[in-house]
Amino acid sequence: MLGKHLDALRANGALIHNITNYVTVNDCANILIACGGAPIMADDKDEVEEITSICGGLNINIGTLNERTIPAMLLAGKKAGELGHPILLDPVGAGASSLRTETAKRIIREVRPTVIRGNISEIKALATGQGGAKGVDADVADRVTDENLDAAIAFAKSFAASTGAVVVITGAIDIAADESRAFVIRNGCPLMSQITGSGCMLSAMTAAYITANPENTLEAAAASVCAMGLCGEKALAITKKLGEGNSSYRSRLIDQVYLLTGATLDEGAKYELR
Amino acid sequence: MLGKHLDALRANGALIHNITNYVTVNDCANILIACGGAPIMADDKDEVEEITSICGGLNINIGTLNERTIPAMLLAGKKAGELGHPILLDPVGAGASSLRTETAKRIIREVRPTVIRGNISEIKALATGQGGAKGVDADVADRVTDENLDAAIAFAKSFAASTGAVVVITGAIDIAADESRAFVIRNGCPLMSQITGSGCMLSAMTAAYITANPENTLEAAAASVCAMGLCGEKALAITKKLGEGNSSYRSRLIDQVYLLTGATLDEGAKYELR
Amino acid sequence: MLGKHLDALRANGALIHNITNYVTVNDCANILIACGGAPIMADDKDEVEEITSICGGLNINIGTLNERTIPAMLLAGKKAGELGHPILLDPVGAGASSLRTETAKRIIREVRPTVIRGNISEIKALATGQGGAKGVDADVADRVTDENLDAAIAFAKSFAASTGAVVVITGAIDIAADESRAFVIRNGCPLMSQITGSGCMLSAMTAAYITANPENTLEAAAASVCAMGLCGEKALAITKKLGEGNSSYRSRLIDQVYLLTGATLDEGAKYELR
Repeated sequence: MLGKHLDALRANGALIHNITNYVTVNDCANILIACGGAPIMADDKDEVEEITSICGGLNINIGTLNERTIPAMLLAGKKAGELGHPILLDPVGAGASSLRTETAKRIIREVRPTVIRGNISEIKALATGQGGAKGVDADVADRVTDENLDAAIAFAKSFAASTGAVVVITGAIDIAADESRAFVIRNGCPLMSQITGSGCMLSAMTAAYITANPENTLEAAAASVCAMGLCGEKALAITKKLGEGNSSYRSRLIDQVYLLTGATLDEGAKYELR
Repeated sequence: MLGKHLDALRANGALIHNITNYVTVNDCANILIACGGAPIMADDKDEVEEITSICGGLNINIGTLNERTIPAMLLAGKKAGELGHPILLDPVGAGASSLRTETAKRIIREVRPTVIRGNISEIKALATGQGGAKGVDADVADRVTDENLDAAIAFAKSFAASTGAVVVITGAIDIAADESRAFVIRNGCPLMSQITGSGCMLSAMTAAYITANPENTLEAAAASVCAMGLCGEKALAITKKLGEGNSSYRSRLIDQVYLLTGATLDEGAKYELR
Repeated sequence: MLGKHLDALRANGALIHNITNYVTVNDCANILIACGGAPIMADDKDEVEEITSICGGLNINIGTLNERTIPAMLLAGKKAGELGHPILLDPVGAGASSLRTETAKRIIREVRPTVIRGNISEIKALATGQGGAKGVDADVADRVTDENLDAAIAFAKSFAASTGAVVVITGAIDIAADESRAFVIRNGCPLMSQITGSGCMLSAMTAAYITANPENTLEAAAASVCAMGLCGEKALAITKKLGEGNSSYRSRLIDQVYLLTGATLDEGAKYELR
């Protein structure tokens, strides 16, 4: 069921305008190509409206936000909104500084993103003002487990309702929810958290999935999350076999995204709808 | 015939000052080392003149240009020109925004680059004000094929004449031309367009080739284009054999540049002079 | 003896705030995770004090310093100092421009870093105003060899005494010194200088080692230098066996940092105390 969204992305492409951090930007560009999309990065206020206009979707990532790029994020976001382009917000490190929390909140308020993707601590910081962000990683105390899953689903649906966005919360168990339905996804593996940028890459890829599948944002976002996790599992098998470490794993992961087909995604996706 | 330019680069080195985008900058640095050059990145207006003075050549890439770095590009370019250093301009995304088109034109006018390297859509945007840039990739409608090759060669020579630069247009068929001669190059493979930065890397490497071979800029640029394409072919064989994807391919490509010798370049280069 | 510092880092973790260059930032993030630490990158003046406050240590790298990030480095550095956090300074390219030399000197004066790590030309430029920086690589004339080792050790101790920092000078022979003791380290291999960022990665990793081992900064820094060199040797064996080049070597190197244990470090570390 979810594989068709990857097929559509590969068939139609999706040019994504990225305003993103300089830490993982290369990985975001390569994963966008790997999944069937295409990247352009542009963050100067004097061109972001024009650039976003020639694209199909927008990916805003606040990982290394600064006084120069924040206005560009808002300008691009408003323009993309006017044009009806899908917009993804990755609130990296929300809760870790007030600049991040307030900027993410402002983007939600003024830009109305189509999808918001973060870890549980980041989303909690935006929804409740709480959440113990430990830098850019989720706090252990916040983690979604089988024990608190019902509450986490309710929380995701509630934040989706209040923002009008599909909300994607990733961790050991992933949740993709709109106000009434939630995909609970169990693909992936712990090694994915031992590289920088697995979250940023997922956000960039999700922007491509939702751009190529505008008729069903929730399913497209869930497909992207399953695809990332499944590719993480496939890459893990290679890394274990070859005795490699986290840096090679990063390349193996993107490689698997490049090699993934809709049929393989359908076979390997592990999710339930709640 | 072209291999000697790689031999000269490895023998003499070439320290290249790069003002480039933050997407592919790491790959540009590693490929500069791989080919026998050395990189330094510096983009603050308060140091670019001093930095470019200790270098042998300058690589200006507008991939993520901004209000802070545009003046630095002009300052560095003028200083490099005064010093007689070779200057390469990569007009990434020219045609995709007026900021990019106008900045590239201004650099051409005020800095007089030694080599301009872009895809056909970017070069058309600069030469004619037209060209259907699709983000940072060339538009299908613009592509150089055997059917329109004569016209493309004439176009490259004409743009070379009007700018005083060697013009390098890369795609499935590559052209490197001055006003009277054109190398038509058929190395390379489609997987090279499935990674981010193959164009940026070629530009950085070409800056090193022309810096180490100042007596023959056109041949040195053609050697660099052949080398990149040949290494792309060699990397493809490894990627296919190992069943890898685009991210590993990127590393394999740089690896092959590291391993390439002048003799191997002479054996594998596929070009004709027109 | 040195392996225990890696064990402590893996046991306790170390969240490192990095204000670093955009060339090697991804590698710095991945190596921080590989060694047992965790990275956060933030360089806007409006958040750096808050971000550094939630971290355990600070890594300042001036590789692509600019008018926006220099004040952020000073703000973060002073805040980290107030909080008693370990601070590492990597004066990339000191001596190559007055902006770099003066900024590094100002950071040393106003921030009082815990460790200063650079190549011999960079450290000479800071200590004596001389040193023939060739871009971001050490000048051949400056290199530490067995012939000038005594003088180099005395120089490192003297610069440590005058700055109050542990001084780490890396090259074919590495020195880590405080005012009275110097580790002379002979791990590593020449291929490490054929990738961009081996110095930056070592600095980031060293920030994690000293943050996790605050009771013994000199030993922890020496452990980090031995670890990097030893991993470089292990990666070299793989690169040679597989016939790869410098880009794959970069990933192999980070992989080995990920796989390294305290016991293996103890076995492979090659140093003497002078």
